[in-house]
Amino acid sequence: MSGWITAVYRLRAGAAEVEARAEAIALEQSVEAPLAAVRDDFVRENIVGRVAAIEDCGGGWFEARIELAAATIGYDAGQLLNMLFGNSSLLEDVLLVDAILPAPLAAAFGGPSHGLAALRAEAGASGRALTCSALKPQGVPAAELAELAFALSMGGLDFLKDDHGLADQTYSRFEARIAACAAAVRKARDRTGGRTRYAPSLSGSYPQMRQQLLAARGEGLDAALIAPMIAGCSNFQALRVEFPDFAFLAHPTMTGRAISPVLFARLFRLFGADVAIFPNYGGRFGYSPAVCEAIAAALLSGDDGLKPSIPAPAGGMSVERTPELLDRYGRDVMLLIGGALLSAPREALTEQTRRFVEAVASHHYR
Amino acid sequence: MSGWITAVYRLRAGAAEVEARAEAIALEQSVEAPLAAVRDDFVRENIVGRVAAIEDCGGGWFEARIELAAATIGYDAGQLLNMLFGNSSLLEDVLLVDAILPAPLAAAFGGPSHGLAALRAEAGASGRALTCSALKPQGVPAAELAELAFALSMGGLDFLKDDHGLADQTYSRFEARIAACAAAVRKARDRTGGRTRYAPSLSGSYPQMRQQLLAARGEGLDAALIAPMIAGCSNFQALRVEFPDFAFLAHPTMTGRAISPVLFARLFRLFGADVAIFPNYGGRFGYSPAVCEAIAAALLSGDDGLKPSIPAPAGGMSVERTPELLDRYGRDVMLLIGGALLSAPREALTEQTRRFVEAVASHHYR
Repeated sequence: MSGWITAVYRLRAGAAEVEARAEAIALEQSVEAPLAAVRDDFVRENIVGRVAAIEDCGGGWFEARIELAAATIGYDAGQLLNMLFGNSSLLEDVLLVDAILPAPLAAAFGGPSHGLAALRAEAGASGRALTCSALKPQGVPAAELAELAFALSMGGLDFLKDDHGLADQTYSRFEARIAACAAAVRKARDRTGGRTRYAPSLSGSYPQMRQQLLAARGEGLDAALIAPMIAGCSNFQALRVEFPDFAFLAHPTMTGRAISPVLFARLFRLFGADVAIFPNYGGRFGYSPAVCEAIAAALLSGDDGLKPSIPAPAGGMSVERTPELLDRYGRDVMLLIGGALLSAPREALTEQTRRFVEAVASHHYR
Repeated sequence: MSGWITAVYRLRAGAAEVEARAEAIALEQSVEAPLAAVRDDFVRENIVGRVAAIEDCGGGWFEARIELAAATIGYDAGQLLNMLFGNSSLLEDVLLVDAILPAPLAAAFGGPSHGLAALRAEAGASGRALTCSALKPQGVPAAELAELAFALSMGGLDFLKDDHGLADQTYSRFEARIAACAAAVRKARDRTGGRTRYAPSLSGSYPQMRQQLLAARGEGLDAALIAPMIAGCSNFQALRVEFPDFAFLAHPTMTGRAISPVLFARLFRLFGADVAIFPNYGGRFGYSPAVCEAIAAALLSGDDGLKPSIPAPAGGMSVERTPELLDRYGRDVMLLIGGALLSAPREALTEQTRRFVEAVASHHYR
């Protein structure tokens, strides 16, 4: 693997010191040693990071484009993160805003196994956006979550995912929980002829996640929620390869604020996210509409030959906002409404869900 | 598992809104739903997070102590991180500064397999600090790293670790590299009667790390470097259990700046770090002496009955600073000097390392 990754950092510095700071990041993110300790010509020419450009963004902030050798990645997702931002994440006033990978490196990661077109076709949702809700709150026993799963699925959702807080807790063990919820979703599908797919949340170590995926497959499931920054990106990458029949929904928990959400979207797609959940503007998180549109664009881009992922804006959405969101995102989106549906009285949950599903189905896209 | 974790957040807010913001974090980090969606009494009383105290720190910043149910963790390291800070990591102006766990939860994680006393005894270093250096730069072939490993080990180090950028790259595959370096360290030990322990860097998915540990064990090694925030903390936790013969050195790459390094020290020890590396004050990173002392204290604390971990300040250290650092940290520390040793001319590398080792051995502790 030859070629260079272009990593884009934003850093705060005095104009007189910005070049030295950018050079320091280039060393930190490659050889992690003073240049004096690098005696090998091959390493100096092919491995040491290099500052390609520095742009003044005003207000004491600069954007530095730094080239990092693709060879240092070894095709490993965790190592990519390590080389892009590992030690520099500890520095004050340095943000990682983007990364452009050489095409062969992107191709080696492989992207989603299924992606937008396949998930849409399987949902029978040609020409419209997809719908999703979340099973919560954690703490209730499996049987109660299964009742919610039934009521939500009866409303005709395309996807139903576990809350990312559902793990393997004593009050609701993973296997019993997903067996109950999968059965509830099957029952609703049988009644309505719908196609709701249930995606349980993976947690724990790789061996535990592997067992969870096997158990899910045993229940006839073929979708799962994963939090790459908790699981470790390399483990997500490996699970995607080991379970090609599964569609993976990536959750943004622990992605923080020092790496741009647009880059995370790009990376999660690269590592195999069929769907990437992100905090929508106007909800509980402070993302702007422009950032959300850039996230969606990064997920939908097929420039690198990999399949597009489905953007799934979430986090405090409501049924009432459906037209506004579809006007903004268009068809290529999965709307995720969790708490707002679950706040409805239990007996109105299916009806409230149906309102959401119908609002999406009947929308006239611009 | 009953009981509550006390999580301490620092947040910026207007005085009029701080209570609402703290309540929002308590919900976000527990049920992740509006209270209206929580109908179950058990969940309201035992699972929903609760604000215990809010303190005005001045300058628009507040410290909120929020109690999170220990039952939500399921004894899983990744889930602990997820519940402490997962979604809140996406919020602006919220930092996680500390977490106090109920004793049974800490005991369930188990802490280091070996810890300070065992590592010190095995090094024959009673009454003195420990020494460590790093193999770098990445990009050089295995044979060249092995030459460095030999020269450094001849200087009498206690530990020699891979740079955390060394992974499984085509220019230096893991197994060939560690075989060559382990042989070089053995040769030096045979010549000097020293006890240098070599700790290769683990990378990739859990199955890959497992293979790497088996290969290391095959080479007679019993120490390894791991980056918990790249590997995924649950995977670190599982590897610690699966490989109890190994001492684990934890690397802070990707720990960022939104969770305090003191808490990371606490967590890494909890999950099994025998040694925790952190950026020393006065080096390439901006940590203050007070923060470094707090990190060391967190690692050395045995209050919870788990073994103390060894603090390993690093990141731009020099041999000349040895007396100052030992005056500050005392005996219970592992000094890690990498680049400054490797900047010496190759023929002076062993001698320079010996100077470092002797400065540590001859220090008169206050």
